[in-house]
Amino acid sequence: MKRWIMDKHTPTRGLSFEASESLYTESSQYQTIEIVKTADFGTVMLLDGVLMVTQRDEFVYHEMLSHPTLFTHPNPQNVLIIGGGDCGTLTQVLRHPSVQKVIQVEIDEMVTRVSRQYFPQLTECISDPRAELIFADGIRYLQENQDSFDVILVDSTDPVGPAEGLFRKEFFADCHRALKADGILTIQSESPWIDDLQVVISQVNKDLKELFTYVNPYLASIQTYQAGLWMFQMASKKYQPCLEDQTNAIKESGMQFSYFNRDVFSGCFILPEFVRKLIQ
Amino acid sequence: MKRWIMDKHTPTRGLSFEASESLYTESSQYQTIEIVKTADFGTVMLLDGVLMVTQRDEFVYHEMLSHPTLFTHPNPQNVLIIGGGDCGTLTQVLRHPSVQKVIQVEIDEMVTRVSRQYFPQLTECISDPRAELIFADGIRYLQENQDSFDVILVDSTDPVGPAEGLFRKEFFADCHRALKADGILTIQSESPWIDDLQVVISQVNKDLKELFTYVNPYLASIQTYQAGLWMFQMASKKYQPCLEDQTNAIKESGMQFSYFNRDVFSGCFILPEFVRKLIQ
Repeated sequence: MKRWIMDKHTPTRGLSFEASESLYTESSQYQTIEIVKTADFGTVMLLDGVLMVTQRDEFVYHEMLSHPTLFTHPNPQNVLIIGGGDCGTLTQVLRHPSVQKVIQVEIDEMVTRVSRQYFPQLTECISDPRAELIFADGIRYLQENQDSFDVILVDSTDPVGPAEGLFRKEFFADCHRALKADGILTIQSESPWIDDLQVVISQVNKDLKELFTYVNPYLASIQTYQAGLWMFQMASKKYQPCLEDQTNAIKESGMQFSYFNRDVFSGCFILPEFVRKLIQ
Repeated sequence: MKRWIMDKHTPTRGLSFEASESLYTESSQYQTIEIVKTADFGTVMLLDGVLMVTQRDEFVYHEMLSHPTLFTHPNPQNVLIIGGGDCGTLTQVLRHPSVQKVIQVEIDEMVTRVSRQYFPQLTECISDPRAELIFADGIRYLQENQDSFDVILVDSTDPVGPAEGLFRKEFFADCHRALKADGILTIQSESPWIDDLQVVISQVNKDLKELFTYVNPYLASIQTYQAGLWMFQMASKKYQPCLEDQTNAIKESGMQFSYFNRDVFSGCFILPEFVRKLIQ
């Protein structure tokens, strides 16, 4: 049963695509999870009707949320992922041999269960002995941990519903406390093309700057997310990204990527003028 | 009369947006021209149902088609624009004080006539005495000119219908002949996210490399074009882009931009890994 789906980015615009087949629909305690097959994006996961993961382009979001930070920190051993239930970010983090432990705190266990079935390439990593999956409220989890992590990655949904608290200054302060003295926090921070999200980007940037030594926003092209352009913000206590010795580390790692590379590691921090003005 | 419009990017995906008002629809000899009002993008022009120009984000395409090239050439005096009937590219080119003459060869006069009515901010520049508008077939025009231009910009529609010939090697060879010995040709070359267009990008890159000394593809985020990521290719006989003295020229020009800036001038040439592989 073919049908068209529109992922609305505002009340008056959205990405439309044809689902060739509906594979799964179920509501968890937190949200409705839907899996469909598409010609353009392969298997797609929607949460409350919003496109979250696609087989075709998940690599952009997951590589770009993790590698810029994991290559900026000279020795990331203990990593915390807040959200990230599809395990795509976890997969990328575990590729770094320095990493000894990754704790992932996802609020909705059903997201991970469904991902195991429909995105096995993302969830294989769960069997890695360095990975620990906790299904709980990330905000509460953080409040109980201090000076524990080298890196925290916030892999959240949009700032409405369950993820709203993950865009607040109190949460960033909790992250700051949970990081070691040279730790780095990196969050996904929405699309700079959407008016309502521009407000979020500016506020988040202001809040992070009040807490951290360096805040470096960066961009990636994600065709299936709002307006096709996505921002991340890297908030760091000590290390600055994209220095020469870090790009050498990328080469020496021998790792292969589909979006990230040595040039992208510096290029992603270059902001078009209208984006630069959002975070001045 | 509100209605939803879908600009299809493949048979099974597209950008959907609500038109709050239809302002104009007419068919020229070449295509159907439609103007609508939208909440998200302001005034929008569609050609044969494909979104071409929006009030909200036209600046990206027009700045990025023109300024990287106009700042790479040390003294661009004679410029040819093929296509570009909305005059947005012409507007940007004429901001450069070195430019003495810009000839624009657009096949469809009706596009310019309609733009004068609905995008006056783009067509004001027509009264500049350095601008000459010719309504004719750009391919034929080029065949009659040799060694004439410092810069040629190809501001075309997609490689179907009237613009198909503008993606062929014979046309690029005509451009090469029409350029001076140190001239630069820059073309819009579609979205690297769309399978069918990946083929076009690779072929165009190969053809340009056989004709020119340097071919530098670059990218910009255009939210209303296919998949939100757009490629351009700069083919140059002598000059390489984004050298230090060129970025100084940007600063010294005192020009203000909404997308382009000194950092973008180098950053736009940095390609994500999957795009880099398309042009290897």
